[in-house]
Amino acid sequence: MFVTHLECSRCGATYESEQLANLCRCGGPLLVRYDLEKIKANLTKGDLASRQPDLWRYRELLPVRESGNVVTMGEGMTPLIQLGKLGAELGLSNLYMKDEGLLPTGSFKARGAAVGVSRAKELGVETVAMPTNGNAGGAWSAYCARAGIESIIVMPTSAPAIHRTECAVVGAKLFLVGGLISDAGGIVGRAVKERGYFDVSTLKEPYRIEGKKTMGLEIAEQFGWKLPDVIVYPTGGGVGIIGIHKALKELQEIGWVGDKLPRLVAVQAEGCAPIVKAWREQKSESEFWPDARTVAFGLTVPKAIGDFIVLRGLYETEGCAVAVSDEDILKAVKTIAAKEGLFICPEGAATFCAAAQLANDGWIKPDEAVVLLNTGCGLKYTDALSFDIPILKPDDDLPEL
Amino acid sequence: MFVTHLECSRCGATYESEQLANLCRCGGPLLVRYDLEKIKANLTKGDLASRQPDLWRYRELLPVRESGNVVTMGEGMTPLIQLGKLGAELGLSNLYMKDEGLLPTGSFKARGAAVGVSRAKELGVETVAMPTNGNAGGAWSAYCARAGIESIIVMPTSAPAIHRTECAVVGAKLFLVGGLISDAGGIVGRAVKERGYFDVSTLKEPYRIEGKKTMGLEIAEQFGWKLPDVIVYPTGGGVGIIGIHKALKELQEIGWVGDKLPRLVAVQAEGCAPIVKAWREQKSESEFWPDARTVAFGLTVPKAIGDFIVLRGLYETEGCAVAVSDEDILKAVKTIAAKEGLFICPEGAATFCAAAQLANDGWIKPDEAVVLLNTGCGLKYTDALSFDIPILKPDDDLPEL
Repeated sequence: MFVTHLECSRCGATYESEQLANLCRCGGPLLVRYDLEKIKANLTKGDLASRQPDLWRYRELLPVRESGNVVTMGEGMTPLIQLGKLGAELGLSNLYMKDEGLLPTGSFKARGAAVGVSRAKELGVETVAMPTNGNAGGAWSAYCARAGIESIIVMPTSAPAIHRTECAVVGAKLFLVGGLISDAGGIVGRAVKERGYFDVSTLKEPYRIEGKKTMGLEIAEQFGWKLPDVIVYPTGGGVGIIGIHKALKELQEIGWVGDKLPRLVAVQAEGCAPIVKAWREQKSESEFWPDARTVAFGLTVPKAIGDFIVLRGLYETEGCAVAVSDEDILKAVKTIAAKEGLFICPEGAATFCAAAQLANDGWIKPDEAVVLLNTGCGLKYTDALSFDIPILKPDDDLPEL
Repeated sequence: MFVTHLECSRCGATYESEQLANLCRCGGPLLVRYDLEKIKANLTKGDLASRQPDLWRYRELLPVRESGNVVTMGEGMTPLIQLGKLGAELGLSNLYMKDEGLLPTGSFKARGAAVGVSRAKELGVETVAMPTNGNAGGAWSAYCARAGIESIIVMPTSAPAIHRTECAVVGAKLFLVGGLISDAGGIVGRAVKERGYFDVSTLKEPYRIEGKKTMGLEIAEQFGWKLPDVIVYPTGGGVGIIGIHKALKELQEIGWVGDKLPRLVAVQAEGCAPIVKAWREQKSESEFWPDARTVAFGLTVPKAIGDFIVLRGLYETEGCAVAVSDEDILKAVKTIAAKEGLFICPEGAATFCAAAQLANDGWIKPDEAVVLLNTGCGLKYTDALSFDIPILKPDDDLPEL
């Protein structure tokens, strides 16, 4: 393993990496640091060719010491799918979707859970606790079940019901709360303090980012190590965009990609857009968004603990932040399904709405390579859709079409 | 492309492959035949290493002429996951699950649809029609949407509701029927006859099998071309097990695997077990199973058109057929989730029940390599499960655990 230490994303303080860690003393999230010079000397692009198509192919850039501690369900190397018809409609000739719905538990959260749970197992954790809007709870409870770690999950009652089932079926201790994820976070925070559970809330432990980072590594590899121009990411807690940015900078340091990074775009919903507001005001942190609500439930994060790291990534890459409406999101779910065959989640559909805005504004140029991240499969969000479907009797003939 | 012709699985009659074809004049399903000698001379195992991890890596063994006709959403190369804890419980040290839930549309049906729709597009099809128990409809309508082909889908009202949404959202013309898939088949059959739609019912066109075949190709590659001892497959229409058998025989002919094939096991539910009954009676065909019903809805096929091909595969490989109870299936869904973190469909869970029976009987030996096929993700079947989940208020503390 090439991990050297943990480093605070806010104040730069360093910590030893072989002990369990949550936030820095200053309250900042910790980042995992590697001996990148040594990785550069020990790993070649060619080495990857013979490895399995999962995220563990990048093991030198991941924080697990012993391969026996890896908890895996085959996650990673999700497809990069060209959106030919939709690209033509937007006037974009290189529009792609990376489909994270094809991961275990049906969302991008599996990446963070696979790496986070593996490292928790390696460091001797017995019980984890977390608040969730749904997908993270589903992923962490599944990987914990596989690892033999107990999981305590607190989820808003308003989260899609399917998430309850996926947590409960793998044996998580699941609780619902009438409120937002911030209320769930309060309950978890008190329990962690009093009972010593390991807190795996977003960015409160350093290893989830490392899993999410593999989205960036895969995009780079899938583009033959020539990075795309723009990456568009639906941003709730922001770990995905933080992870992608971290990945690309690490690839620069080992000399595998060039100087120019893709412009990162954070997409939020109009009903909960604290990072968009902060970006418009060119601030370094966001403010708590009151009365947050959107059909893209995973984006209902009124104040992300890592907001300043997300914003730093947008500024550093000359990216931007875009808010889109629920109406446009729901329309996009159907358009993307009908045109490209991809039934994706509302959060993923939001990236398409953002790309449409940015192409229309000229911020994205027609021949730029653009990657939209779909963070989850549409099957988890069928409650948001309804259709009238005719019923026949066995002896009926099909009506005229 | 290395396709030479189509051949009837029943009478051996041959047909030209560049024209649209359904069943043979004798009523038998048609199989695609290749110039395997030429493939042997033109393709090496090493060629595969640099290809994408999707089913199109086996393109020489697939029936699409022009790569521009390939309709893909990145399907294939699903993970082979070791079931360490469950294997230990059954006394099996090499128990694996191939997780087909990680395909587009959340089931193994994506393989048949990807190849079937690609070939239909290549041959100029404009409208397809099919009866379905759900998953096939979801897959074919999604791939048809991507291809720009109209799809007409008829599904029993009793199929899980989520399948309606996945067909409707991609723009399929969807109809429900109060009855079984055989009733849906009747409606489709009359419409096809009168209106000229292309009939893509199970085994009524030759290319779906070719997509399913890639499960067998992947298993062989994932085992380093040394085949496992036993493959356990949940069998409704039977295309999966037919495809796997066909794949392994083709690999034998090109010299990539040895003489001994895995013993194929067809798993059915006690409430619909026509192939198990036929196998027990050592017959070459099954009889219509009256009043078919099981919680593993995809297995509700009272009389499969390819039953005789499935049975031939069981006899040729010295395999067997096993029926399992709904009670055991539902229990297995929860056990597999809680022990291994894998939330799978009832059909997939049925394979575990069968493996448990066969290990207990001594039919499977402790050190044999066994692959269970999970045909779909559990997210599509949450209606079959229920849990009591406590609700907290924001100021509440977690109860004692």
